[in-house]
Amino acid sequence: MRKALIGLTVAAAMLAGAANAQDRKVTIGVSIPAADHGWTAGVVFHAQRVAKALMARHPGLNVIVKTSPDAATQANALEDLATQGIGALVILPSDPDPLVNAIKRVKGKGVFVTLVDRAPSNNDNSVRDLYVAGNNPALGATAGEYIKSRTPDAMVAVIRGLPIPIDQQRQDGFDKAIAGSNVKVLGKQFGNWNRDDAFKVMQDYLTKFPKIDVVWCQDDDMAVGVLQAIAQAKRSDIQYVVAGAGSKDMVKKVLDGDKLIPVDVLYPPAMVGTALELTVASLYDQVPVRGSYILDATLITKENAKEFYFPDSPF
Amino acid sequence: MRKALIGLTVAAAMLAGAANAQDRKVTIGVSIPAADHGWTAGVVFHAQRVAKALMARHPGLNVIVKTSPDAATQANALEDLATQGIGALVILPSDPDPLVNAIKRVKGKGVFVTLVDRAPSNNDNSVRDLYVAGNNPALGATAGEYIKSRTPDAMVAVIRGLPIPIDQQRQDGFDKAIAGSNVKVLGKQFGNWNRDDAFKVMQDYLTKFPKIDVVWCQDDDMAVGVLQAIAQAKRSDIQYVVAGAGSKDMVKKVLDGDKLIPVDVLYPPAMVGTALELTVASLYDQVPVRGSYILDATLITKENAKEFYFPDSPF
Repeated sequence: MRKALIGLTVAAAMLAGAANAQDRKVTIGVSIPAADHGWTAGVVFHAQRVAKALMARHPGLNVIVKTSPDAATQANALEDLATQGIGALVILPSDPDPLVNAIKRVKGKGVFVTLVDRAPSNNDNSVRDLYVAGNNPALGATAGEYIKSRTPDAMVAVIRGLPIPIDQQRQDGFDKAIAGSNVKVLGKQFGNWNRDDAFKVMQDYLTKFPKIDVVWCQDDDMAVGVLQAIAQAKRSDIQYVVAGAGSKDMVKKVLDGDKLIPVDVLYPPAMVGTALELTVASLYDQVPVRGSYILDATLITKENAKEFYFPDSPF
Repeated sequence: MRKALIGLTVAAAMLAGAANAQDRKVTIGVSIPAADHGWTAGVVFHAQRVAKALMARHPGLNVIVKTSPDAATQANALEDLATQGIGALVILPSDPDPLVNAIKRVKGKGVFVTLVDRAPSNNDNSVRDLYVAGNNPALGATAGEYIKSRTPDAMVAVIRGLPIPIDQQRQDGFDKAIAGSNVKVLGKQFGNWNRDDAFKVMQDYLTKFPKIDVVWCQDDDMAVGVLQAIAQAKRSDIQYVVAGAGSKDMVKKVLDGDKLIPVDVLYPPAMVGTALELTVASLYDQVPVRGSYILDATLITKENAKEFYFPDSPF
């Protein structure tokens, strides 16, 4: 009975024309990881920011943002949201595979499901209606292309993330981009997408290699550690560092013309906002949104950095 | 100077927070083909429908929808729109390759470009910022999967479109889906995505084959011709027809439980609305939208058909 009722709510919401769409009452649940590091702190910020903007624009819309520290807690959060009678769910899973069944239970109730960033092994429309994600191979490729084109003979120290598929995709994209060029990779140690670990890896590189032209470290959090290590060692051979994400601090450095951070590569926590916008558009304006949406790993430069700068964000 | 000014307008629009976003003044140009057949008539309808809904919600937003009968006229329309100082362009090209240079000229002025459906040979971010499209291989696959699962031993008469890549992608998707099954293809003639041509091909099939279980004809316009031919021949062996697009008439038949049209496969002209929503979200809410968005070829059934039904649309 509940199932039928919720299904009807969504169908009714989708049926009505745009004319009196403003008055329609729909609740959307947004389930995201707790702010356990920089990027997820950004996810929380943008989920709340875009929810606020959309609620201001749609008086009948209610968006509930719930954060959960781990997969088990997030599964419970999904149950809670479903009980509250949501018409749609936007979820960025802390760990996708263990959450598949919980997500499917919500979807089985007729709830529209938008999955963000982290895909389960079987990422098809039995799990979600819409998938919005960043582009990991392109994140590596954009960095590789930039380095190759700006410093064709660069000797590059690479700091990888954790040995999981995302890291491999980024590394493969990078390797492909520099293949056949004169760019040389000095080393490829894992920094675990962690500031302190990246600091230690960079210290090690600085001891090992008397001359480093460029550092590629995939990630803005790791870049903080890398910059600290370079500053402490007072080394002036390093021309620049390429990181990735689009954090407030790195984008500010790009904006300010910092020579060590001339660019950044976008893998934006704000994608949760994009996912929420599409979910709302589907419910209020009856536009088709089911599908797969892969965001570009845009090169952030001094010229376009303002577009990606959020001074009020924690990240 | 113009370039710098327009660039600044967009950057400024993207910079301001969501708080006073409603007041921001931006003009978006929407350039689409004239309504030369059913699907493009749907594109015009949905572009105007969604533009109206978005302008009602964003008092500072002005959307100019321009239709053009051919590529040369559309290139001029792009010039006109650029002269009017647009902040973003949403374009569904009548023919993409001949329009690449005209699109690049607009993009070169700092205008955000969203490309819909028809991609040029070189569809990268030198041509557009965002790409929104339907899924041609999946359109064939969804039809094939449905036929295979509902009528595992069906003898299927196939009517193709025009001998261009889109048709081949659809056919390949279909062939892959039925591969290894007992579904048999009786014939594969071209109906040119045209109602009258499909009528003739179907007449020919009805003469040639004493028993046809299912017709797969890719396209709702062609389905109209197919249904006419079947009705005229008074043949009762055909169990059902699977078409594609999501036209008002076919979706209504699905809704009404018409036995000959039990399902349809989505390739929605409303995707121009999705593209416009994302473009507006980027300008007003500073969410990342650059990327590639491929919509699902959703199976439209009696259960979900309401969501895809637009009684006021010409298509």
